[in-house]
Amino acid sequence: MMRVTMILLSLVLSSLSYANNQSSNFLTAEDSDPTKMGWMVGFPPPKDKLIMQPESDFFSFPKLRWTACHIRELMPTKQVSRGISVPTSFVYANNKNIDSLTFIPMNSEREVTWAQSLSENYTDGILILHKGKIVYERYFGCLNEMGQHAAMSMTKSLTGLLAEVLIAEGRLDESSKVSSIIPQLKDSAFGSATVRQVMDMTTALDYSEDYSDPNADIWLYSKAASPLPKPKEYKGPNGYLEYLQTVRKNGVHGEAFGYKTINTDALGWIIAKVTGKDVSQLLSERIWSKMGAEQDGYMTVDARGMPFAGGGLSASLRDLGRIGLLVLNGGKINGQQIFPQKAVESILAGGDKVAFAKAGYKTLPGGSYKSMWWVFHNDHGAVAARGVHGQTIYIDPTAEMVIVRYSSFPSANNAKIDPTSLPAYQAVAEYLKKNSN
Amino acid sequence: MMRVTMILLSLVLSSLSYANNQSSNFLTAEDSDPTKMGWMVGFPPPKDKLIMQPESDFFSFPKLRWTACHIRELMPTKQVSRGISVPTSFVYANNKNIDSLTFIPMNSEREVTWAQSLSENYTDGILILHKGKIVYERYFGCLNEMGQHAAMSMTKSLTGLLAEVLIAEGRLDESSKVSSIIPQLKDSAFGSATVRQVMDMTTALDYSEDYSDPNADIWLYSKAASPLPKPKEYKGPNGYLEYLQTVRKNGVHGEAFGYKTINTDALGWIIAKVTGKDVSQLLSERIWSKMGAEQDGYMTVDARGMPFAGGGLSASLRDLGRIGLLVLNGGKINGQQIFPQKAVESILAGGDKVAFAKAGYKTLPGGSYKSMWWVFHNDHGAVAARGVHGQTIYIDPTAEMVIVRYSSFPSANNAKIDPTSLPAYQAVAEYLKKNSN
Repeated sequence: MMRVTMILLSLVLSSLSYANNQSSNFLTAEDSDPTKMGWMVGFPPPKDKLIMQPESDFFSFPKLRWTACHIRELMPTKQVSRGISVPTSFVYANNKNIDSLTFIPMNSEREVTWAQSLSENYTDGILILHKGKIVYERYFGCLNEMGQHAAMSMTKSLTGLLAEVLIAEGRLDESSKVSSIIPQLKDSAFGSATVRQVMDMTTALDYSEDYSDPNADIWLYSKAASPLPKPKEYKGPNGYLEYLQTVRKNGVHGEAFGYKTINTDALGWIIAKVTGKDVSQLLSERIWSKMGAEQDGYMTVDARGMPFAGGGLSASLRDLGRIGLLVLNGGKINGQQIFPQKAVESILAGGDKVAFAKAGYKTLPGGSYKSMWWVFHNDHGAVAARGVHGQTIYIDPTAEMVIVRYSSFPSANNAKIDPTSLPAYQAVAEYLKKNSN
Repeated sequence: MMRVTMILLSLVLSSLSYANNQSSNFLTAEDSDPTKMGWMVGFPPPKDKLIMQPESDFFSFPKLRWTACHIRELMPTKQVSRGISVPTSFVYANNKNIDSLTFIPMNSEREVTWAQSLSENYTDGILILHKGKIVYERYFGCLNEMGQHAAMSMTKSLTGLLAEVLIAEGRLDESSKVSSIIPQLKDSAFGSATVRQVMDMTTALDYSEDYSDPNADIWLYSKAASPLPKPKEYKGPNGYLEYLQTVRKNGVHGEAFGYKTINTDALGWIIAKVTGKDVSQLLSERIWSKMGAEQDGYMTVDARGMPFAGGGLSASLRDLGRIGLLVLNGGKINGQQIFPQKAVESILAGGDKVAFAKAGYKTLPGGSYKSMWWVFHNDHGAVAARGVHGQTIYIDPTAEMVIVRYSSFPSANNAKIDPTSLPAYQAVAEYLKKNSN
C-alpha cells in the first residue's frame, strides 16, 4: 500500500510545493542509466535489482529511471487506443546545430550547451518539432521510439484540453456550477465552484499537499486512489470519486491559483458525466484515434476502474509531439481539423495572472494557468504541459516550435529543472526562428 | 488475494480436469451480455455493478463476460508491442451462406445452424479466414474490432511456437536437459526432463490440479503467481520462477501427456534464458511486430514482472487470425517468411498419440499435443490453440481455413463446448473446401 501511495504521490506532486530533503549528490544521468544499474535484468533478476510492489520504493531515484517507462507492469491500467488505422509518419529535417547551441541558465553565469543540458536534466527522450517537421529527436535511459513514458502531470493538460473541446462544441458550459453536473459533489467544496474555476485551479479547497505532515490530505487521497485492494481495517473513501466528495471548502473560489491535483480528477468526473465516457475513452475517441498516433497510450486506474485524470497517462514521445502540434495549429493535424480551433485559442489566451502570482512560482514570473496548461506570457506566447521530474510539452507559437521532453530528474522539483530547461527551450526557439528551413 | 487466485485459476484451468459443480441453468448469451448486465456502467457504477479487486468474483460467470475484455484494468500487464509500422489490412470475401450451415453436435441428433452455435457457445468474437481472406467476422458481448480479449490457454500455443522457432533456428536443442539451461531447476522435476518433454507436457510432475482439494498444488501456484503484494504472513514462493523450483517428480518423463500449465511457464523460462528476452518481448520481436498486427497484445505478469507464459495473453481477434495464418502457411504472411517453416511443420506433424490417449480426453479421440498445440489427427490435419471458456485458433490445412473464436462460456469446461464447436468448425471446413471463392 505504501508503495502505491508513493507512486501516486510522485505522479501528483506539484511543481513547487515539494520540500526536497534529499541531498543533491545524485548519481549522474549516465551513472543512473537503468541499463547500467541493471534493474530487472535476468531471469530472475538478482534480489537487489528487483523493482516491484511492495518492497521497493519504485518511484524514487534512481529506480524512478526504470519505473517511468514501466508503470503498467506495476499496476492496473486502461488503454488509450489509437484505433486500428494507419499511423502517420513525421517528416524529418534533422538539424545538427542544435546540440551546440548555448544558453545561460537562470541565476547563473556559466554557458551551457543544449547537449549538456539533456544530461544535466536526466532527459529520457526529447523531440523538437519546427513547422511540423522533426528537427531533433534523442532517446536516453529507459526510453526508445517504441516505448511509453509516464507523462505525470502533463496528463492534466490533456484532461483540460478535452474540457475545452467540449466547451467549444457547446456540450459543456464553463460557467455551470459543478453541483449541477455532479449532484454527488453538492456538499463538497467543488459543488459551489464553476467548471472554469476547476479547470483553472482557482477553487478554494481545504486540502493540503504538505508531504511532511502524515495527516495531510494528499496521503488520504493517495490511499483512496490506490488500485490495490484496501486493507481490511481501511474505512476511508475508495477511489477518486468517493474521495472528491469529502473535500471541504476553505476560502473564496476564483481568487487564487492553487495547484491541487484533485481539481483535475474533479474535471475528469465532469467530463465523464457530460459525455458518458471516462477520460481514457474520450481521449482515444476524440484525439488519439484521429491524430495519426503511432502507439496506444494508457492510464492508471483506481480500484474501481476510474482513470487518473490528474497524472496517470503514459505515452510515446512522438505521440505527445502530435498533441503539441494540435495545440500549436489550432486543432489541425495531417490536414484535418479534429476539434474546434476555439478550444486551443482559449488555452493560448492564458488565465488570471493575478490569481497565479499569489502562488509564488519563482521560475514562472508573470505566468498564468489556463485549463490545466501553464502559460508563460512571454514574447513568444509560449504555453506548456508540465509534469514533475521534468516532463514537458512546450509550445512556442512564434517560433512554430514544439518541444516534448520526458525525463527522470532525481527530485520531484521543477523549480530545480526550470533554470536549465526554460532558457534552453528559449535558445532553440530563437535559433529556429532565425534559421527557418 | 483470493480473487487474483481465482483469475489465475480460471486462466490455467485445463480443458477437462475441471469438475464443474455449477448448475447448467445459466443466463443465455443474450441475457448475460455485459452491456445488458450493466457492469461498470456509470460514474461511479452502482455498487452491485462494480467488477473490481478484491470483493467481486470477477472471473466467474456472468461477470466473466465483462472481465474477459478488461484484464489489464484489474492487474499489472506487460505490452506485446506491434511496433510502430503500418498494420496490414485483410481482404474480405464475406460469405453469407455460413450462418445457415447446419451440423449435428456430438452425441446428439438435433440439427444446429452455425449462427445458433455462436450464441449457444457464448461467442464474443469469431473470425473465419479462407485462403487468407476473411469470409466471416462477428463480434458479440464485450468485444469489438478495437478490443482485446483474454486468450487464456491459447497463450501456451504461442509460447510453444516461439520454442519451435528457436529450435528451427538451432538456438534451442529439444533434447537438452532443462537443468543444462536453467541450473536453478536442477533439483526440481523439470531438471531431468528434456525441453521436448516440457514442450509436449509429457513431464512426470508431482502436481495436482484438483480444485476440490484446498491443499492442491494449483492453489499454491496461484498464490505464488499473484501480482498483488503478498500478505505479511505469506512464506511461500513469489512468482513463477520460484514456484517452478519447488515442483517434485512423480513417475517417468516422456510416458504420458498431462495438461499442466506449469510446463508452459517452465518453457517460458527456458525461452528467456536462451534469448535474454521474456515471452512478451520475444513474441513482440519475432512475431507481433512482423505480422502486420493491428493492435498491441499484452500479458499479465507476476509480482516480479515475469509474464504468464501459460495463460496471460490478451489480443485482438484479427491478430490471432494472423497467428493462425502463420501456422497455416508455414511462417509466411503478407509475402514475408517471418520464421522458419520447420517450426510449423513440427507442430503439424503432431505428437505422441499413445501418451495423449492416457489423459482420456473424450472429445479429442486419437489426438495428440505437440509444442503446446492440440493436434486432432483428423482427415484435414487440423490443429488448434485452445483456451478455457471456448477460446480457439483452429487451423485446417486441407480446407485452407483458420477459425478464431473468443468466448466466455459459463463454465471452464471445453468438454462441454467441443460437442457443439468442433462439428461446427468441420462443417464450415467442408463447405469452404467445396465452395472455393
